[in-house]
Amino acid sequence: MRDIAAAADLSAANLYHYFDGKTDLLFYCQDRALDRMLEATASARRASRSAAERLHLIFTAHLHTLLDDIEGATAHLEVDTLPPDARTAIVKKRDRYEHALRRIIVEGIRSGELVKMEPSLIARAMLGAMNWTVTWFRPEGPDSAAAVGDVISRFLVRGVAARTPAATRTLSVVRR
Amino acid sequence: MRDIAAAADLSAANLYHYFDGKTDLLFYCQDRALDRMLEATASARRASRSAAERLHLIFTAHLHTLLDDIEGATAHLEVDTLPPDARTAIVKKRDRYEHALRRIIVEGIRSGELVKMEPSLIARAMLGAMNWTVTWFRPEGPDSAAAVGDVISRFLVRGVAARTPAATRTLSVVRR
Repeated sequence: MRDIAAAADLSAANLYHYFDGKTDLLFYCQDRALDRMLEATASARRASRSAAERLHLIFTAHLHTLLDDIEGATAHLEVDTLPPDARTAIVKKRDRYEHALRRIIVEGIRSGELVKMEPSLIARAMLGAMNWTVTWFRPEGPDSAAAVGDVISRFLVRGVAARTPAATRTLSVVRR
Repeated sequence: MRDIAAAADLSAANLYHYFDGKTDLLFYCQDRALDRMLEATASARRASRSAAERLHLIFTAHLHTLLDDIEGATAHLEVDTLPPDARTAIVKKRDRYEHALRRIIVEGIRSGELVKMEPSLIARAMLGAMNWTVTWFRPEGPDSAAAVGDVISRFLVRGVAARTPAATRTLSVVRR
Protein backbone atom coordinates (compact mmCIF):
# COMPACT_ATOMS: atom_id res chain seq x y z
CA MET A 1 0.00 0.00 0.00
CA ARG A 2 2.85 2.37 0.91
CA ASP A 3 4.48 1.92 -2.56
CA ILE A 4 1.18 2.42 -4.31
CA ALA A 5 0.40 5.52 -2.26
CA ALA A 6 3.84 6.96 -3.14
CA ALA A 7 3.30 6.19 -6.83
CA ALA A 8 -0.14 7.80 -6.75
CA ASP A 9 1.18 10.76 -4.74
CA LEU A 10 -1.22 10.10 -1.87
CA SER A 11 -0.65 9.41 1.81
CA ALA A 12 -1.15 5.79 2.84
CA ALA A 13 -3.85 6.98 5.27
CA ASN A 14 -5.67 8.66 2.41
CA LEU A 15 -5.50 5.49 0.35
CA TYR A 16 -6.91 3.41 3.22
CA HIS A 17 -9.80 5.84 3.37
CA TYR A 18 -10.88 4.66 -0.08
CA PHE A 19 -9.78 1.04 -0.05
CA ASP A 20 -10.31 -1.81 2.35
CA GLY A 21 -6.74 -3.09 2.21
CA LYS A 22 -4.45 -4.35 -0.53
CA THR A 23 -6.74 -6.88 -2.24
CA ASP A 24 -9.52 -4.29 -2.46
CA LEU A 25 -7.15 -1.89 -4.21
CA LEU A 26 -5.84 -4.69 -6.43
CA PHE A 27 -9.39 -5.54 -7.49
CA TYR A 28 -10.12 -1.89 -8.24
CA CYS A 29 -6.97 -1.60 -10.40
CA GLN A 30 -7.64 -4.77 -12.36
CA ASP A 31 -11.30 -3.99 -12.82
CA ARG A 32 -10.53 -0.50 -14.07
CA ALA A 33 -7.77 -1.73 -16.41
CA LEU A 34 -10.18 -4.25 -17.94
CA ASP A 35 -12.89 -1.58 -18.26
CA ARG A 36 -10.45 0.53 -20.28
CA MET A 37 -9.54 -2.39 -22.50
CA LEU A 38 -13.20 -3.20 -23.10
CA GLU A 39 -13.88 0.47 -23.87
CA ALA A 40 -10.99 0.36 -26.34
CA THR A 41 -12.55 -2.58 -28.21
CA ALA A 42 -15.88 -0.72 -28.42
CA SER A 43 -14.31 2.52 -29.57
CA ALA A 44 -12.11 0.68 -32.10
CA ARG A 45 -15.26 -0.87 -33.60
CA ARG A 46 -16.75 2.61 -33.98
CA ALA A 47 -13.53 4.16 -35.33
CA SER A 48 -12.93 1.77 -38.22
CA ARG A 49 -14.33 -1.08 -40.28
CA SER A 50 -10.88 -2.57 -40.85
CA ALA A 51 -9.91 -5.49 -38.58
CA ALA A 52 -6.22 -4.52 -38.81
CA GLU A 53 -6.96 -0.93 -37.80
CA ARG A 54 -9.20 -2.07 -34.97
CA LEU A 55 -6.55 -4.45 -33.64
CA HIS A 56 -3.90 -1.75 -33.80
CA LEU A 57 -6.10 0.64 -31.80
CA ILE A 58 -6.87 -2.03 -29.19
CA PHE A 59 -3.24 -3.11 -28.79
CA THR A 60 -2.08 0.47 -28.39
CA ALA A 61 -4.71 1.06 -25.69
CA HIS A 62 -3.89 -2.25 -23.95
CA LEU A 63 -0.17 -1.46 -23.79
CA HIS A 64 -0.86 2.11 -22.70
CA THR A 65 -3.01 0.80 -19.85
CA LEU A 66 -0.34 -1.71 -18.78
CA LEU A 67 2.74 0.47 -19.12
CA ASP A 68 1.67 4.06 -18.76
CA ASP A 69 -1.16 4.14 -16.24
CA ILE A 70 -0.69 4.04 -12.50
CA GLU A 71 -3.91 2.10 -12.00
CA GLY A 72 -3.40 -0.53 -14.65
CA ALA A 73 0.23 -1.49 -14.31
CA THR A 74 1.38 -4.81 -12.99
CA ALA A 75 -1.71 -5.21 -10.85
CA HIS A 76 -3.58 -6.30 -13.96
CA LEU A 77 -1.86 -9.68 -13.92
CA GLU A 78 -1.98 -10.67 -10.26
CA VAL A 79 -5.37 -12.35 -10.52
CA ASP A 80 -4.42 -15.32 -8.37
CA THR A 81 -3.89 -13.21 -5.26
CA LEU A 82 -7.54 -12.02 -5.22
CA PRO A 83 -10.18 -13.61 -2.97
CA PRO A 84 -12.45 -16.12 -4.84
CA ASP A 85 -15.44 -13.80 -5.52
CA ALA A 86 -13.31 -10.94 -6.80
CA ARG A 87 -11.23 -13.37 -8.84
CA THR A 88 -14.35 -14.78 -10.52
CA ALA A 89 -15.54 -11.28 -11.45
CA ILE A 90 -12.17 -10.35 -12.94
CA VAL A 91 -11.78 -13.62 -14.86
CA LYS A 92 -15.28 -13.12 -16.27
CA LYS A 93 -14.44 -9.61 -17.46
CA ARG A 94 -11.09 -10.81 -18.84
CA ASP A 95 -12.93 -13.49 -20.80
CA ARG A 96 -15.26 -10.83 -22.23
CA TYR A 97 -12.25 -8.86 -23.40
CA GLU A 98 -10.59 -11.91 -24.95
CA HIS A 99 -13.86 -12.76 -26.66
CA ALA A 100 -14.19 -9.24 -28.12
CA LEU A 101 -10.65 -9.53 -29.49
CA ARG A 102 -11.34 -12.96 -30.96
CA ARG A 103 -14.48 -11.64 -32.63
CA ILE A 104 -12.52 -8.97 -34.47
CA ILE A 105 -10.03 -11.61 -35.65
CA VAL A 106 -12.84 -13.88 -36.88
CA GLU A 107 -14.47 -11.00 -38.76
CA GLY A 108 -11.12 -10.07 -40.30
CA ILE A 109 -10.56 -13.63 -41.49
CA ARG A 110 -14.06 -13.72 -43.02
CA SER A 111 -13.53 -10.46 -44.90
CA GLY A 112 -10.16 -11.74 -46.16
CA GLU A 113 -8.27 -8.93 -44.48
CA LEU A 114 -6.58 -11.36 -42.06
CA VAL A 115 -5.09 -14.78 -42.79
CA LYS A 116 -6.84 -17.93 -41.71
CA MET A 117 -5.21 -18.94 -38.44
CA GLU A 118 -6.91 -20.38 -35.34
CA PRO A 119 -8.45 -17.20 -33.74
CA SER A 120 -8.33 -18.39 -30.12
CA LEU A 121 -4.62 -19.26 -30.33
CA ILE A 122 -3.74 -16.05 -32.15
CA ALA A 123 -5.69 -13.94 -29.63
CA ARG A 124 -3.80 -15.57 -26.76
CA ALA A 125 -0.44 -15.15 -28.47
CA MET A 126 -1.27 -11.44 -28.87
CA LEU A 127 -2.35 -11.09 -25.23
CA GLY A 128 0.81 -12.92 -24.13
CA ALA A 129 3.14 -10.65 -26.08
CA MET A 130 1.41 -7.63 -24.52
CA ASN A 131 1.00 -8.87 -20.95
CA TRP A 132 4.59 -10.11 -20.81
CA THR A 133 5.80 -6.50 -21.19
CA VAL A 134 5.12 -5.90 -17.49
CA THR A 135 7.89 -8.41 -16.65
CA TRP A 136 10.60 -6.40 -18.43
CA PHE A 137 9.42 -2.84 -19.13
CA ARG A 138 11.10 -0.12 -17.06
CA PRO A 139 9.95 3.52 -17.44
CA GLU A 140 13.60 4.61 -17.03
CA GLY A 141 14.75 2.18 -19.78
CA PRO A 142 15.78 3.07 -23.37
CA ASP A 143 12.25 2.84 -24.86
CA SER A 144 9.22 4.89 -23.85
CA ALA A 145 5.89 3.20 -23.13
CA ALA A 146 4.54 4.82 -26.31
CA ALA A 147 7.40 3.43 -28.43
CA VAL A 148 6.97 -0.07 -26.98
CA GLY A 149 3.22 0.16 -27.59
CA ASP A 150 3.67 1.26 -31.19
CA VAL A 151 6.29 -1.36 -32.16
CA ILE A 152 4.55 -4.29 -30.50
CA SER A 153 1.14 -3.28 -31.89
CA ARG A 154 2.51 -3.14 -35.44
CA PHE A 155 4.35 -6.43 -34.99
CA LEU A 156 1.19 -8.20 -33.78
CA VAL A 157 -1.00 -6.82 -36.58
CA ARG A 158 1.60 -7.86 -39.19
CA GLY A 159 1.38 -11.40 -37.81
CA VAL A 160 -2.20 -11.80 -39.05
CA ALA A 161 -2.62 -9.20 -41.80
CA ALA A 162 -3.15 -10.95 -45.14
CA ARG A 163 -1.25 -8.36 -47.10
CA THR A 164 1.58 -6.44 -45.50
CA PRO A 165 1.50 -3.39 -47.81
CA ALA A 166 -2.22 -2.88 -47.21
CA ALA A 167 -1.79 -3.27 -43.48
CA THR A 168 1.07 -0.77 -43.42
CA ARG A 169 -0.95 1.77 -45.39
CA THR A 170 -3.88 1.29 -43.08
CA LEU A 171 -1.77 1.72 -39.97
CA SER A 172 -0.05 4.86 -41.15
CA VAL A 173 -3.52 6.39 -41.54
CA VAL A 174 -4.43 5.43 -38.00
CA ARG A 175 -1.21 6.84 -36.59
CA ARG A 176 -1.34 10.19 -38.37
CA MET B 1 7.88 -32.55 -5.03
CA ARG B 2 5.08 -35.10 -4.72
CA ASP B 3 3.31 -33.66 -7.80
CA ILE B 4 6.52 -33.62 -9.79
CA ALA B 5 7.34 -37.19 -8.75
CA ALA B 6 3.87 -38.30 -9.86
CA ALA B 7 4.23 -36.51 -13.19
CA ALA B 8 7.66 -38.08 -13.76
CA ASP B 9 6.39 -41.47 -12.60
CA LEU B 10 8.93 -41.68 -9.77
CA SER B 11 8.54 -42.10 -6.03
CA ALA B 12 9.13 -38.93 -4.02
CA ALA B 13 11.94 -40.77 -2.17
CA ASN B 14 13.59 -41.53 -5.49
CA LEU B 15 13.36 -37.88 -6.54
CA TYR B 16 14.93 -36.72 -3.25
CA HIS B 17 17.82 -39.11 -3.94
CA TYR B 18 18.74 -36.96 -6.94
CA PHE B 19 17.67 -33.51 -5.81
CA ASP B 20 18.35 -31.48 -2.72
CA GLY B 21 14.78 -30.21 -2.31
CA LYS B 22 12.39 -28.24 -4.47
CA THR B 23 14.62 -25.30 -5.44
CA ASP B 24 17.38 -27.68 -6.55
CA LEU B 25 14.92 -29.48 -8.82
CA LEU B 26 13.53 -26.15 -10.06
CA PHE B 27 17.03 -25.00 -10.95
CA TYR B 28 17.71 -28.26 -12.78
CA CYS B 29 14.48 -27.93 -14.81
CA GLN B 30 15.07 -24.30 -15.77
CA ASP B 31 18.72 -24.88 -16.58
CA ARG B 32 17.89 -27.85 -18.78
CA ALA B 33 15.04 -26.01 -20.55
CA LEU B 34 17.39 -23.11 -21.36
CA ASP B 35 20.07 -25.56 -22.56
CA ARG B 36 17.56 -26.98 -25.00
CA MET B 37 16.55 -23.54 -26.23
CA LEU B 38 20.21 -22.56 -26.70
CA GLU B 39 20.85 -25.84 -28.53
CA ALA B 40 17.85 -25.03 -30.76
CA THR B 41 19.35 -21.67 -31.74
CA ALA B 42 22.67 -23.35 -32.62
CA SER B 43 21.03 -26.13 -34.61
CA ALA B 44 18.73 -23.63 -36.38
CA ARG B 45 21.83 -21.69 -37.50
CA ARG B 46 23.30 -24.89 -38.94
CA ALA B 47 20.02 -26.01 -40.56
CA SER B 48 19.31 -22.87 -42.59
CA ARG B 49 20.66 -19.55 -43.77
CA SER B 50 17.18 -17.95 -43.75
CA ALA B 51 16.31 -15.84 -40.68
CA ALA B 52 12.61 -16.73 -41.04
CA GLU B 53 13.38 -20.45 -41.16
CA ARG B 54 15.74 -20.17 -38.20
CA LEU B 55 13.14 -18.31 -36.14
CA HIS B 56 10.48 -20.88 -36.98
CA LEU B 57 12.74 -23.74 -35.86
CA ILE B 58 13.64 -21.94 -32.61
CA PHE B 59 10.02 -21.05 -31.77
CA THR B 60 8.84 -24.60 -32.39
CA ALA B 61 11.59 -25.94 -30.09
CA HIS B 62 10.85 -23.28 -27.44
CA LEU B 63 7.14 -24.11 -27.36
CA HIS B 64 7.84 -27.84 -27.40
CA THR B 65 10.12 -27.41 -24.38
CA LEU B 66 7.51 -25.34 -22.52
CA LEU B 67 4.41 -27.35 -23.36
CA ASP B 68 5.49 -30.89 -24.12
CA ASP B 69 8.40 -31.70 -21.83
CA ILE B 70 8.08 -32.68 -18.20
CA GLU B 71 11.37 -30.97 -17.30
CA GLY B 72 10.75 -27.68 -19.07
CA ALA B 73 7.14 -26.93 -18.28
CA THR B 74 6.05 -24.15 -15.99
CA ALA B 75 9.24 -24.40 -13.96
CA HIS B 76 11.00 -22.40 -16.67
CA LEU B 77 9.28 -19.22 -15.57
CA GLU B 78 9.55 -19.36 -11.78
CA VAL B 79 12.92 -17.62 -11.68
CA ASP B 80 12.08 -15.44 -8.69
CA THR B 81 11.67 -18.37 -6.33
CA LEU B 82 15.29 -19.49 -6.79
CA PRO B 83 18.04 -18.61 -4.28
CA PRO B 84 20.24 -15.65 -5.42
CA ASP B 85 23.19 -17.65 -6.87
CA ALA B 86 21.00 -20.01 -8.85
CA ARG B 87 18.87 -17.08 -9.99
CA THR B 88 21.91 -15.22 -11.30
CA ALA B 89 23.04 -18.28 -13.28
CA ILE B 90 19.61 -18.76 -14.85
CA VAL B 91 19.15 -15.07 -15.69
CA LYS B 92 22.61 -15.10 -17.34
CA LYS B 93 21.70 -18.11 -19.47
CA ARG B 94 18.31 -16.58 -20.31
CA ASP B 95 20.08 -13.41 -21.45
CA ARG B 96 22.35 -15.52 -23.70
CA TYR B 97 19.29 -17.08 -25.28
CA GLU B 98 17.57 -13.72 -25.78
CA HIS B 99 20.78 -12.39 -27.30
CA ALA B 100 21.02 -15.32 -29.74
CA LEU B 101 17.43 -14.66 -30.83
CA ARG B 102 18.08 -10.94 -31.26
CA ARG B 103 21.18 -11.68 -33.35
CA ILE B 104 19.11 -13.71 -35.82
CA ILE B 105 16.59 -10.86 -36.08
CA VAL B 106 19.37 -8.30 -36.68
CA GLU B 107 20.91 -10.49 -39.40
CA GLY B 108 17.51 -10.95 -41.02
CA ILE B 109 16.91 -7.19 -41.07
CA ARG B 110 20.35 -6.62 -42.64
CA SER B 111 19.71 -9.19 -45.38
CA GLY B 112 16.31 -7.63 -46.07
CA GLU B 113 14.46 -10.82 -45.21
CA LEU B 114 12.90 -9.21 -42.14
CA VAL B 115 11.39 -5.75 -41.77
CA LYS B 116 13.20 -3.04 -39.87
CA MET B 117 11.71 -3.06 -36.37
CA GLU B 118 13.55 -2.58 -33.06
CA PRO B 119 15.10 -6.09 -32.54
CA SER B 120 15.14 -6.02 -28.74
CA LEU B 121 11.43 -5.13 -28.53
CA ILE B 122 10.46 -7.68 -31.17
CA ALA B 123 12.49 -10.43 -29.46
CA ARG B 124 10.73 -9.71 -26.17
CA ALA B 125 7.30 -9.65 -27.79
CA MET B 126 8.09 -13.06 -29.29
CA LEU B 127 9.32 -14.47 -25.98
CA GLY B 128 6.22 -13.07 -24.27
CA ALA B 129 3.79 -14.67 -26.71
CA MET B 130 5.56 -18.00 -26.18
CA ASN B 131 6.12 -17.87 -22.42
CA TRP B 132 2.55 -16.75 -21.77
CA THR B 133 1.30 -20.10 -23.15
CA VAL B 134 2.13 -21.76 -19.82
CA THR B 135 -0.58 -19.63 -18.17
CA TRP B 136 -3.37 -21.04 -20.35
CA PHE B 137 -2.26 -24.22 -22.12
CA ARG B 138 -3.85 -27.43 -20.88
CA PRO B 139 -2.74 -30.80 -22.35
CA GLU B 140 -6.37 -31.98 -22.15
CA GLY B 141 -7.62 -28.86 -24.02
CA PRO B 142 -8.79 -28.65 -27.66
CA ASP B 143 -5.34 -27.97 -29.17
CA SER B 144 -2.29 -30.22 -28.93
CA ALA B 145 1.07 -28.78 -27.87
CA ALA B 146 2.30 -29.39 -31.43
CA ALA B 147 -0.64 -27.46 -32.94
CA VAL B 148 -0.13 -24.54 -30.54
CA GLY B 149 3.59 -24.55 -31.34
CA ASP B 150 2.99 -24.56 -35.08
CA VAL B 151 0.35 -21.78 -35.13
CA ILE B 152 2.17 -19.45 -32.75
CA SER B 153 5.52 -19.99 -34.51
CA ARG B 154 4.02 -19.09 -37.89
CA PHE B 155 2.21 -16.08 -36.42
CA LEU B 156 5.43 -14.72 -34.86
CA VAL B 157 7.49 -15.21 -38.03
CA ARG B 158 4.81 -13.46 -40.09
CA GLY B 159 5.10 -10.48 -37.73
CA VAL B 160 8.63 -9.70 -38.96
CA ALA B 161 8.93 -11.39 -42.36
CA ALA B 162 9.33 -8.72 -45.07
CA ARG B 163 7.37 -10.65 -47.64
CA THR B 164 4.59 -12.96 -46.54
CA PRO B 165 4.50 -15.20 -49.63
CA ALA B 166 8.24 -15.87 -49.40
CA ALA B 167 8.00 -16.60 -45.71
CA THR B 168 5.10 -19.00 -46.24
CA ARG B 169 7.00 -20.87 -48.96
CA THR B 170 10.02 -21.08 -46.70
CA LEU B 171 8.03 -22.37 -43.77
CA SER B 172 6.24 -25.07 -45.71
CA VAL B 173 9.68 -26.40 -46.70
CA VAL B 174 10.77 -26.43 -43.08
CA ARG B 175 7.65 -28.26 -41.97
CA ARG B 176 7.76 -31.04 -44.52
